[in-house]
Amino acid sequence: MERNKALAIVKEQLTEHRYSHTIGVMETAIKLSGIFGADKKKAEEAAIFHDYAKFRPKEEMMEIIKEQNMKKDLLLYSGELWHAPVGAYLVQKEAGITDPDVLEAIRCHTSGKPGMSLLDKIIFVADYIEPGRHFPGVEEARELAKKDINKAAIFALKNTIAFLLKKNQAVYPDTINTYNDLILNS
Amino acid sequence: MERNKALAIVKEQLTEHRYSHTIGVMETAIKLSGIFGADKKKAEEAAIFHDYAKFRPKEEMMEIIKEQNMKKDLLLYSGELWHAPVGAYLVQKEAGITDPDVLEAIRCHTSGKPGMSLLDKIIFVADYIEPGRHFPGVEEARELAKKDINKAAIFALKNTIAFLLKKNQAVYPDTINTYNDLILNS
Repeated sequence: MERNKALAIVKEQLTEHRYSHTIGVMETAIKLSGIFGADKKKAEEAAIFHDYAKFRPKEEMMEIIKEQNMKKDLLLYSGELWHAPVGAYLVQKEAGITDPDVLEAIRCHTSGKPGMSLLDKIIFVADYIEPGRHFPGVEEARELAKKDINKAAIFALKNTIAFLLKKNQAVYPDTINTYNDLILNS
Repeated sequence: MERNKALAIVKEQLTEHRYSHTIGVMETAIKLSGIFGADKKKAEEAAIFHDYAKFRPKEEMMEIIKEQNMKKDLLLYSGELWHAPVGAYLVQKEAGITDPDVLEAIRCHTSGKPGMSLLDKIIFVADYIEPGRHFPGVEEARELAKKDINKAAIFALKNTIAFLLKKNQAVYPDTINTYNDLILNS
């Protein structure tokens, strides 16, 4: 989809802050695609639509997860995870996005998954390091991402898991499975 | 099995340091059984034999894991995990331990497992806090263990996972599954 048309569609779905974040993810994902040789158009589209469902009501997301036979265990874990698979479903249904690579990158952008494609990794990492992000360690993550997308993804996963442990929150199994997959196979 | 006979059997399998650790785990497990109402004789037996296989050669442990159809994914993760299931097998075969509760507590004492019994938790926690253990946080773990065996187990699991993340090592899925199980269900 043409960039401005795509941006106009997501703008309606997001807060101003989240729209700026989306622009940051888009620019970062395109840069990373240049560095690692991924398809820039796919990266642009996946980045623009990655948070499409971010502000849908929890109840609507739960309904979609159940109706569309998405992984039921999602409902046991943080609602912060839900907008990723729900978004992949809704951008297809409501915005006419059909590229399976783009949809999959949106689907797994919060938890990752074992066996991520390069595009999946780029969206996952871009979401973590885009210029609007400010947290201890983000500069280190940005430096890693210039050279090694796997190391940058591992860094993001480690930080996410450590954060959940600190808050005594459950860790979604795919998050640790993705970490293990990258540690053992990259 | 009578305590002194059991201790004589494991003494032959362990270094002096590890034998002292075993005594510490035994005393701690008996104390915790008193606090939480577990079977002290079972706790004593499981504690005495929990590290029975600790010093078996890696090759022997790998063979047993394969031959006895234990979880194959164990071999992908740290060898430090192997002595637990291998020990449960060997104490049955070589020392005549038959109590299934004791064998299970030995089997899962390094990684934990979702749905641990009280005895499983006691051995898991006693192994972590026995008086010979010295590391930052052990006193906090000891205090937790006097009041809430689940909180003490969560503390130990969190520390173990954080340690593995810091060292860029894979986290055995049952370790995170046990953490999630206790966070979500206790």
